[in-house]
Amino acid sequence: MARSTGRRTVVTIDVSAPAGSRSRQDHLAAEEPLEIRVRKKPLAVTMRTPGHDIDLAMGFLLSEGVISQATDVTTAQLCAGTDTPNTYNVVDVVLDPSVPPPVTDPTRNFYTTSSCGVCGKASIDAVRTKSRFDVAGFPLEVAAKTLTELPTKLRAAQRTFDRTGGLHAAGLFTTDGELLVLREDVGRHNAVDKVLGWALREGRLPLSGNVLLVSGRASFELVQKAWMAGLPLLAAVSAPSTLAVELAEESGMTLVGFLREPKMNIYTGAHRVTV
Amino acid sequence: MARSTGRRTVVTIDVSAPAGSRSRQDHLAAEEPLEIRVRKKPLAVTMRTPGHDIDLAMGFLLSEGVISQATDVTTAQLCAGTDTPNTYNVVDVVLDPSVPPPVTDPTRNFYTTSSCGVCGKASIDAVRTKSRFDVAGFPLEVAAKTLTELPTKLRAAQRTFDRTGGLHAAGLFTTDGELLVLREDVGRHNAVDKVLGWALREGRLPLSGNVLLVSGRASFELVQKAWMAGLPLLAAVSAPSTLAVELAEESGMTLVGFLREPKMNIYTGAHRVTV
Repeated sequence: MARSTGRRTVVTIDVSAPAGSRSRQDHLAAEEPLEIRVRKKPLAVTMRTPGHDIDLAMGFLLSEGVISQATDVTTAQLCAGTDTPNTYNVVDVVLDPSVPPPVTDPTRNFYTTSSCGVCGKASIDAVRTKSRFDVAGFPLEVAAKTLTELPTKLRAAQRTFDRTGGLHAAGLFTTDGELLVLREDVGRHNAVDKVLGWALREGRLPLSGNVLLVSGRASFELVQKAWMAGLPLLAAVSAPSTLAVELAEESGMTLVGFLREPKMNIYTGAHRVTV
Repeated sequence: MARSTGRRTVVTIDVSAPAGSRSRQDHLAAEEPLEIRVRKKPLAVTMRTPGHDIDLAMGFLLSEGVISQATDVTTAQLCAGTDTPNTYNVVDVVLDPSVPPPVTDPTRNFYTTSSCGVCGKASIDAVRTKSRFDVAGFPLEVAAKTLTELPTKLRAAQRTFDRTGGLHAAGLFTTDGELLVLREDVGRHNAVDKVLGWALREGRLPLSGNVLLVSGRASFELVQKAWMAGLPLLAAVSAPSTLAVELAEESGMTLVGFLREPKMNIYTGAHRVTV
């Protein structure tokens, strides 16, 4: 099985110290390509940190609107086809016969289907068309104080980060602040896909009673993933983008940014956060 | 023209303060899709912060090995075809007739062309095949002290970050620590493409006498971009991944991580950094 970290010799320099430079062993976050195949055809390649690869593939397919429940997938397995040695960098997914195969023609991707060509509005419209969940109707409430404590809990649970200092994290919490699952990856979108794939396999969708916290910024892509999983609240330790806020507003989701104890900014859906 | 920031009303909560919550106007980093077209055919869509879009497209095409010099491009312009209103989210590139068109079949992308299927080794081999520059042979030298001062210079020049707190930056420096160009974007890879596209248009390739600094982590993708531009030294404020280090070593590049005054880690090519 591929590893989530690797060791390297590194030269450390401190220009303020007399001794200057020394050599030591260091842990690095692993990065390897993962190919997601559907019905034996390559659908996507993502650079990810090995580990929870089946969940990553499930979360990716959920985010893209290809699947919406665990029974949409007949089998999903790590394989390497005819490769020697097995690199464990391919997940082969067999969909239930009732599920339409994904669109793989790049010229037909969702950004370009709107009459306005390619623009933020079209991107938002495309996600709305794919989403199954009315997030606006989910009556979740969470105390502001509980929210402000989540980043510390996420950070405490990040085992790989402690060794490498180089990983994004996504954590799924209850409204009482209990951590249900945490995933790490060099790519923030992969960490989120791993969480969502776990939830899908566990039969937890929609995640109408949960909060998703991401370690960095909130982009359009992350709000899309949250909406596709039926999450009424997405929180980020850092800043959201304009289009992330617009998509959150369109969905009726609560979007929290700069979540750093004791403060936060609420960009949409402030009614779900109680002071 | 599309804007690089947007304004939103935000609710700020401080659970440690008596007044608790207040509403105010805040600046956000803009995120919009950009479609890169070559010979009228869509090649890629990236979510980016508007601004320097022609440079972004040039840098992307350079990174992917489609072009290698300014004269490979006949025209490149922001357009929106038949769209009303013009969203300025499409760059249309016309290549010189001597330049082979890019491969757009997703099943033929470079990660899957190797005999080992999809793996880090194949990804490295693919970049080596595309790269024109012998980075290992570039005799750049830079003082450790000069390097440690670069993040402060980069941060001081980040005007949009100051307003939004939400942007990655990439800066090109001389070995004396002079900032030549800085670009910001919600995507770190886009910020780097904008810098490289500028350098290509300016006829500066290979960037054999320069240092590239990125605000976050160093991934495989960023080392690939640096190699394709002939950069002998890539520095990152945060951690590199395993595959980033392997690609840097393969290229003969110097890779610096955790560059935070007064310290740094050197992962490859330590001979270029003088103490």
